[in-house]
Amino acid sequence: MARRTAQDIRRRNRFDALRCVFAAPGPVSRQEIATVTGLSFATVANLVAELLEAGVLLEVGHEDSKGGRPRARLAINADRGALFGIDVAETSVQVELFDLALTVLQSVRLPLPQADVRPDEVVETIVAGVRGLADATDGRRVLGAGVSVPGLVEREGGVSVYSPYWSWRDVPLRTLLAEHLTMPLYLDNPLKASTVAEMWFGAGRDVDDLVVVTLRAGVGAGIAVDGALYRGATNSAGEWGHTCLIPGGRECRCGRRGCVEAYVSTRGIVQTVRELAPGSPLLDADEATAITAIARAAAEGEPVAVETVARTAHHLGTASADLLNLFNPQALVLGGWVADRLGEPLLRQTREVIAANALPATLQALTLQVSDVPDNPVSLGAATFALEGFLDDRETFGPVAAGRRAARASRARTS
Amino acid sequence: MARRTAQDIRRRNRFDALRCVFAAPGPVSRQEIATVTGLSFATVANLVAELLEAGVLLEVGHEDSKGGRPRARLAINADRGALFGIDVAETSVQVELFDLALTVLQSVRLPLPQADVRPDEVVETIVAGVRGLADATDGRRVLGAGVSVPGLVEREGGVSVYSPYWSWRDVPLRTLLAEHLTMPLYLDNPLKASTVAEMWFGAGRDVDDLVVVTLRAGVGAGIAVDGALYRGATNSAGEWGHTCLIPGGRECRCGRRGCVEAYVSTRGIVQTVRELAPGSPLLDADEATAITAIARAAAEGEPVAVETVARTAHHLGTASADLLNLFNPQALVLGGWVADRLGEPLLRQTREVIAANALPATLQALTLQVSDVPDNPVSLGAATFALEGFLDDRETFGPVAAGRRAARASRARTS
Repeated sequence: MARRTAQDIRRRNRFDALRCVFAAPGPVSRQEIATVTGLSFATVANLVAELLEAGVLLEVGHEDSKGGRPRARLAINADRGALFGIDVAETSVQVELFDLALTVLQSVRLPLPQADVRPDEVVETIVAGVRGLADATDGRRVLGAGVSVPGLVEREGGVSVYSPYWSWRDVPLRTLLAEHLTMPLYLDNPLKASTVAEMWFGAGRDVDDLVVVTLRAGVGAGIAVDGALYRGATNSAGEWGHTCLIPGGRECRCGRRGCVEAYVSTRGIVQTVRELAPGSPLLDADEATAITAIARAAAEGEPVAVETVARTAHHLGTASADLLNLFNPQALVLGGWVADRLGEPLLRQTREVIAANALPATLQALTLQVSDVPDNPVSLGAATFALEGFLDDRETFGPVAAGRRAARASRARTS
Repeated sequence: MARRTAQDIRRRNRFDALRCVFAAPGPVSRQEIATVTGLSFATVANLVAELLEAGVLLEVGHEDSKGGRPRARLAINADRGALFGIDVAETSVQVELFDLALTVLQSVRLPLPQADVRPDEVVETIVAGVRGLADATDGRRVLGAGVSVPGLVEREGGVSVYSPYWSWRDVPLRTLLAEHLTMPLYLDNPLKASTVAEMWFGAGRDVDDLVVVTLRAGVGAGIAVDGALYRGATNSAGEWGHTCLIPGGRECRCGRRGCVEAYVSTRGIVQTVRELAPGSPLLDADEATAITAIARAAAEGEPVAVETVARTAHHLGTASADLLNLFNPQALVLGGWVADRLGEPLLRQTREVIAANALPATLQALTLQVSDVPDNPVSLGAATFALEGFLDDRETFGPVAAGRRAARASRARTS
């Protein structure tokens, strides 16, 4: 059975209170946090005391409260520390430095070799990126770094179990990085990272059950249940890209046929153009450039591009309808740069296909939107893992800190 | 955001402690409950005090604890009360009376008219069944009744939103029943009921994340995440039967084509026989009888039956592989009377198909089994909802009861 200790519950409540502060357009009061989270005012007061003491929150003035005493307004203390979010992709590594309010301070993208990249090459690139941004911390202490690597990740051990691009097997990436970097390190994959970014900074600010469908070179479905990322037994939940959409259909790079990914990934969409018009000028580029060209051409009414978006919406919508029937979420978010690029036309047509194919009960509570998480959601999510790790730090937030706080309160009373 | 109050957490811990007592082969100690649930000994002692006071648990002797003082052994107080579990199916209603240990005291199955059954006919049948079993309570107070009705159920309001068999729309079934029955009533559907039965009395005793695939006239996937039933936004999560397995394939009763249900439900399996051998004697019966005949004939090596089981396993396994990739559970349980009837041969072949189709990360942590929940899992699960409702009763377990207990403890100290 799952272990639900008082410590777990407290951490979860701490996350919820802080997510609420991040989600608000400006500073908030304790009362507002209590209303949004459903926690009691006493619990919120306690959590806020802890977060103020840890320097994560700041009091930034007061608001009038009709008749009562003025309420203190709280905001994230952006300068309390810095976090790295690192997105290891197929051809490059993006290293971003954030303040504690998760605002980008500085960012750098470094290329990877065009080959079967070795783990030490990735480690070198990450370390170079982190060192290159050291000055931008501007005196803030680095509280942690989150690293997203493609494929299957064993999170607890910080191991890259499998990579879709490189011949990696059980690479202890966190241990390798820890030889060069001293801050706490958190490893996960792009699907989990972009989903946690959505939970803190996107649609997840309003709902607790959501599915984030990401379209990139790979395709996945990030799942949040009851406000928590759903990982499954081996951290591979949400492997939706290899769901069979069309038995005997297109070959997929996984070796099977007809997978969702073979139709709605970058490669899949380009393949649709190729099948529609083998000589199309839209194909005169690498896949990423082609997606941008397709989006532009579709906006101008070019028939092949228009039909490509329509077919992509058809595939995405039919596959999503089944996914939504299973999870019955409050929101479906289309994320990943491909969804971002194809934008509103893809969203509109996908919505129609879903409406025609999903069950009425599924549609009843559902909203559908393109992600509005700022670029890059993967590095932002990776930094969020580092933030979550810091919020879980027993030195800062554990029983010892609580004891210190109680002792100080007691001294204050007796002095 | 979800509301997680102290009351919610306490209820959840109460459920976990009691699930642990139910799951054990004999009486258990507080220490064993603490070990299994991961709760602290102090929390368990508190929960047990509450459950003893409520009469739900009994102390049934002591065990030696090497060197320490003997540990009290705890068991469910079966005679504390009675619960009804009611399974409304397409052609009949089964009403079962349970003691608090969820042992069947008496059971009755009453036929429904062979037509578009009206809500008042279902209400009359349920009420007749409950009254017919009144004597079997043997003086135990009836603590609640759980009612499972097919289709979509709005649980909070106790409304049958949609029925797959009858032309029902938004039938306020709980209100209609409450005109005749005075005990607390809990409404849900067979998928949710059989999944909660699996969580308390089946594979869910050992794992917290599981998927229960049920094969009956309908097909569904019950989902437990972190030891809790996953319902989704409108209580329709797990609608797997209408996932598209073969685009343009068999007509489904939902109006679409190629749904999972069109292949692995009773009707789907009989259709497979019909396609293989239109004149097969296996078809000389209603669908339910045909499934039993197919199981028997397959065991004897009859080629059409053998091939029917193989094709069913193929369809079930390919569809399940995608489902498992999405949820990445610790266990997949095949439930429903069709899985029970086709048994080991279906399980073995389905396992092979899943192994060939699911991702390695999915297979790594997965066990696969046929449900061993005793018949009828739907009425047992319905009674479990009533048990959960009773455990949630604020009169018995709320702050008032806690206050009473504290006052008594205080009096005991001062007297």
